[in-house]
Amino acid sequence: MLPKLAGVFVLAGFSLTLGAVATVSAASDEVPFPDGFRDWFAVNSMIVTKDSPLSAQIGGLHIVYVNAKGLPLLKTSGPFPYPDGTVFADDVHDFSVKDGSYVEGTKKAVTAMVKDSKKYAATGGWGFQVWAGGDPAKPLIPDTAHAIQACFVCHSPQQAQDYVFSTYIP
Amino acid sequence: MLPKLAGVFVLAGFSLTLGAVATVSAASDEVPFPDGFRDWFAVNSMIVTKDSPLSAQIGGLHIVYVNAKGLPLLKTSGPFPYPDGTVFADDVHDFSVKDGSYVEGTKKAVTAMVKDSKKYAATGGWGFQVWAGGDPAKPLIPDTAHAIQACFVCHSPQQAQDYVFSTYIP
Repeated sequence: MLPKLAGVFVLAGFSLTLGAVATVSAASDEVPFPDGFRDWFAVNSMIVTKDSPLSAQIGGLHIVYVNAKGLPLLKTSGPFPYPDGTVFADDVHDFSVKDGSYVEGTKKAVTAMVKDSKKYAATGGWGFQVWAGGDPAKPLIPDTAHAIQACFVCHSPQQAQDYVFSTYIP
Repeated sequence: MLPKLAGVFVLAGFSLTLGAVATVSAASDEVPFPDGFRDWFAVNSMIVTKDSPLSAQIGGLHIVYVNAKGLPLLKTSGPFPYPDGTVFADDVHDFSVKDGSYVEGTKKAVTAMVKDSKKYAATGGWGFQVWAGGDPAKPLIPDTAHAIQACFVCHSPQQAQDYVFSTYIP
């Protein structure tokens, strides 16, 4: 089991990523790439450093986005669950540290959680995917079994808010 | 002179902020609060820690936004200057560090740079303001002289990209 992180984030683990493992040609659970997510609502940001036990899985500077479908419920913090069609995307970048400031670098990965309560019933109604380098042609999670291991295990403790770490921070 | 930060950010210094100094009742340069900026395009994120020489001025977790007027030129990285009406906003939050992860906390301040090449000619065509706690009723920069000291001095080295630190990071 991956270590748990108490926080406010959508965390889709990507221990399968970062070069060592070949990408899959087609994700069997068919989670679509979150096209245009940079124009969505920016929910929050976080940095996972090399000092974190999750560094290998999710190290980097994160900015989490939510699409218009999920935004109202995020802002009211419920009532859960999120409606089908909700998508959270996490834009993960490298970062550098200079004189005590952590500065955003190049894109490392994009992750997504897509809500479809029937299609993804085995993982809380969420489909999970990670794309290496944020490239839509490079999904890294081949099937539901891997999604459970790489993503859902960490999200499970968040069941009370529909498996989502992120909260709205005014 | 404040120390310089090599980076990719809009930094509006707020050495006047953070409780010790009373807020001004009306900012003489009348920079408007960036209403609705949370729905704008999120440009990038950064964390300035207590180890930074800029910690007292701009410590916190930053997410920088740009309005629709400035977005096209941000994405093409020029040609500068930004058009009048461009606004950058910086949403500055406290953060906590837990197990090597830097997690966003409550709002600390909101800053803005508003482009009006005539009105703000003395400061590169940009009006600068900082609002304590992100409260539109609590601007902290009383006049242009203070804007120069608290904001423009640090932004001056960025003249080649119209005094803006932020760049588009795909």
